[in-house]
Amino acid sequence: MGTLQIVKIGGKVVDEPSALKEVLYRFSRLSGKKILVHGGGKGASALAERLGIPTQMVEGRRITDAETLQVVQMVYAGLLNTNIVAGLQALKVNAMGMTGADGNVILSRKRPVGAIDFGFVGDVQRVNVPFVKMLLEQQVVPVFCALTHDGQGQILNTNADTIATELAVALSPYFSTELIFTFEKDGVLRDVNDAHSVINRLSHSEFLRLKKEGVIQEGMIPKLENAFRSLQKGVKKVRILNALNLSPPDSGKPIGTTITPE
Amino acid sequence: MGTLQIVKIGGKVVDEPSALKEVLYRFSRLSGKKILVHGGGKGASALAERLGIPTQMVEGRRITDAETLQVVQMVYAGLLNTNIVAGLQALKVNAMGMTGADGNVILSRKRPVGAIDFGFVGDVQRVNVPFVKMLLEQQVVPVFCALTHDGQGQILNTNADTIATELAVALSPYFSTELIFTFEKDGVLRDVNDAHSVINRLSHSEFLRLKKEGVIQEGMIPKLENAFRSLQKGVKKVRILNALNLSPPDSGKPIGTTITPE
Repeated sequence: MGTLQIVKIGGKVVDEPSALKEVLYRFSRLSGKKILVHGGGKGASALAERLGIPTQMVEGRRITDAETLQVVQMVYAGLLNTNIVAGLQALKVNAMGMTGADGNVILSRKRPVGAIDFGFVGDVQRVNVPFVKMLLEQQVVPVFCALTHDGQGQILNTNADTIATELAVALSPYFSTELIFTFEKDGVLRDVNDAHSVINRLSHSEFLRLKKEGVIQEGMIPKLENAFRSLQKGVKKVRILNALNLSPPDSGKPIGTTITPE
Repeated sequence: MGTLQIVKIGGKVVDEPSALKEVLYRFSRLSGKKILVHGGGKGASALAERLGIPTQMVEGRRITDAETLQVVQMVYAGLLNTNIVAGLQALKVNAMGMTGADGNVILSRKRPVGAIDFGFVGDVQRVNVPFVKMLLEQQVVPVFCALTHDGQGQILNTNADTIATELAVALSPYFSTELIFTFEKDGVLRDVNDAHSVINRLSHSEFLRLKKEGVIQEGMIPKLENAFRSLQKGVKKVRILNALNLSPPDSGKPIGTTITPE
């Protein structure tokens, strides 16, 4: 069983060209089969502001009305995805930019309206595993932005962490799959005020304890819940690390936080 | 040798959702291997205006400065390409949206600055034929927007007619290739004021005569020059027709203008 690394990047590294260049270089050096998933950074909010479209966030998620969907399509698929693919091609990585509509790879369902109407947001229903396997077998490196489709012609906005997790879970029967979430800090911190307090290994029971104590909070909670869920569903390894520390796994240095089932 | 149809759409049909839906339905009914190439319609100029970026056109070509390049990326790859792919998936066509950077499929070179500086405009250098063949053999239907890359990380703006022509020429050794340019009229007209004066067959000598007489003019001239060039370089058949008349070739009705070498 071959290995597969699925790397999610987001936040500042997609906003800053020099940081992005460094991360793409490091990604290009990873050996074996790999997939890149990228978030949108602040570009969508910036464009929405230029166009006079109000940005509404609830629980860290963007409310995606029809105009906002156009904005995220323009930024995620139009600017970021094409530039990342061109950047990887310059590094001799045979990248292929994708939304979930391409090759019908990620089918989602518009989130039902509950207490909140998230608008054109999609919850993943199904990953077209044979198609992704085919691309990987052709030495293609898929690069996903945070868009899916409903199979009836509608593009939907889907969180990039979720896309990375769903891909990792769906592909884990066929590859020894490692999921790598990157962000701006060096890993999960024991003390948010101490950038050096990285937890090297985090088990589920430890996570529950630190969550209860309020040490782990906000955006890190859904990220870690995604991580533990993916380990239960066959993903071999999950790491959380600084995008600028992304490096080949054989470099020996312990980097970031490794999530372990127990 | 299998058949391949390469269809270029542009103009009003990409701007009007109901017209686009009709054209995608007709495209979905074409049998055999196929590729769709789409232009940008008026969306890029409209977005540029909203963002206060001046649009400069010279000889029907857009001057693409850095800000304008962002606009065309957002509209061509972000909005149009993703929506067209999602629309085709709803019709059970396994579409895959592409710029020339995806799979390193269309490598171009930034046009040298002469009397006019076109900015980030790319002239096609090379088509990655094995990669496109691989996609077609996997029953994928590539959908190209009018963007290429220079292999060094830079996306470039490239005319959609040119992309369709270059793909057709490059693939013609492997497929019996038909190139179909669609636009808003029913074909090449003998009298621009008479929509019914469609020329059914147009040879090169006839073209030269009609050009000299001023019957064929403006935007139709480069389109026809592309057509004749592609026939010289191995493309089997070129047709120019109304996108709303796109239909299976076995329907019997003569549609549009067929370009013939002699």
